[in-house]
Amino acid sequence: MARRVDPHERRELLADALMRLAAERGLEAVSLRHVAAEAGVSTGMVQHYFRTKDEMMTFALGMVMDRIRRRSQALSVPATPRELVRGLLLQVLPLDETRRLENHVVLAFLAYAAVKPALASGLRESAAEMRTFLADQLRAAGADGVGHEQAAAGLLALVDGLGLQLLSRQYADEDAVAALDAQLALLFGRR
Amino acid sequence: MARRVDPHERRELLADALMRLAAERGLEAVSLRHVAAEAGVSTGMVQHYFRTKDEMMTFALGMVMDRIRRRSQALSVPATPRELVRGLLLQVLPLDETRRLENHVVLAFLAYAAVKPALASGLRESAAEMRTFLADQLRAAGADGVGHEQAAAGLLALVDGLGLQLLSRQYADEDAVAALDAQLALLFGRR
Repeated sequence: MARRVDPHERRELLADALMRLAAERGLEAVSLRHVAAEAGVSTGMVQHYFRTKDEMMTFALGMVMDRIRRRSQALSVPATPRELVRGLLLQVLPLDETRRLENHVVLAFLAYAAVKPALASGLRESAAEMRTFLADQLRAAGADGVGHEQAAAGLLALVDGLGLQLLSRQYADEDAVAALDAQLALLFGRR
Repeated sequence: MARRVDPHERRELLADALMRLAAERGLEAVSLRHVAAEAGVSTGMVQHYFRTKDEMMTFALGMVMDRIRRRSQALSVPATPRELVRGLLLQVLPLDETRRLENHVVLAFLAYAAVKPALASGLRESAAEMRTFLADQLRAAGADGVGHEQAAAGLLALVDGLGLQLLSRQYADEDAVAALDAQLALLFGRR
């Protein structure tokens, strides 16, 4: 009956369990033991794949970023820079259950990284990568009126802020999409 | 020796202790007992002023919002709408130790409210108030090119996102201010 376990797949299963728990009760309250119970495995098994909770959180964050990237690439049939940007950013916003779960993890991770600076480097890299992508698209679209790097930084911040507001129920989904579209119109023009 | 204790002042002292602890270790790990130890009072004393941690967090959040409001009002010598907006938003961003502490609390509160929806109503109100103020200033400045409500929502989201990025050390202070200024230039024009 024993089947070969793909270690990456197993890590993803555990990270998914962590994400469900984080969405329910926040990350700080979650231990490796909780994750084991949620995933239906032993604590020793969890420790085999992740030595610490921080290691598991870092892995979960990378997994979320990969999924966002993959989903937005799946959408990118030949598209204009503006469509590419909108497609990516809509994949980031918590507009369905999957993305809400992902946003919970990112938010919990950010709150955690704010008090544990050593954890911030993974975040820094994926944010920088995202910013570069956005600036490239703005450049490709010939967007003007503002520097591309600053516009990209502002756009990413706007989406991070909208995600935060949606997650803490300050704001309705459609209002968040409208605010994003207004910003895209400002940056890319009304075309 | 006993002096009359101003209950509001006492609450602020306790909320300040909560904020210091939240900045050090995150909110979820903090109990009323920790706050008592940090403030140098008994747990019973803390419980006299706050029945629950949620009650204390709600109070601390309101206190932070009041302080931001007061600081930005102190700056508002006769100013243009754009200067008013910039002054307020710079008071929100974590650009010095005080504001970093405040942002820690707000972020921790947001992460907590994301899993405890009942806490979100205070947040919703202060965000709505802020958005109305920003929309009014955009209208007063005759900003055009985008609806004032949506532009205000986007601007607040951008500042929330920049705050998040600064706090989790993804971004340098001066880059965040430059991204804010680029957005103000987009909305208010280059004047």
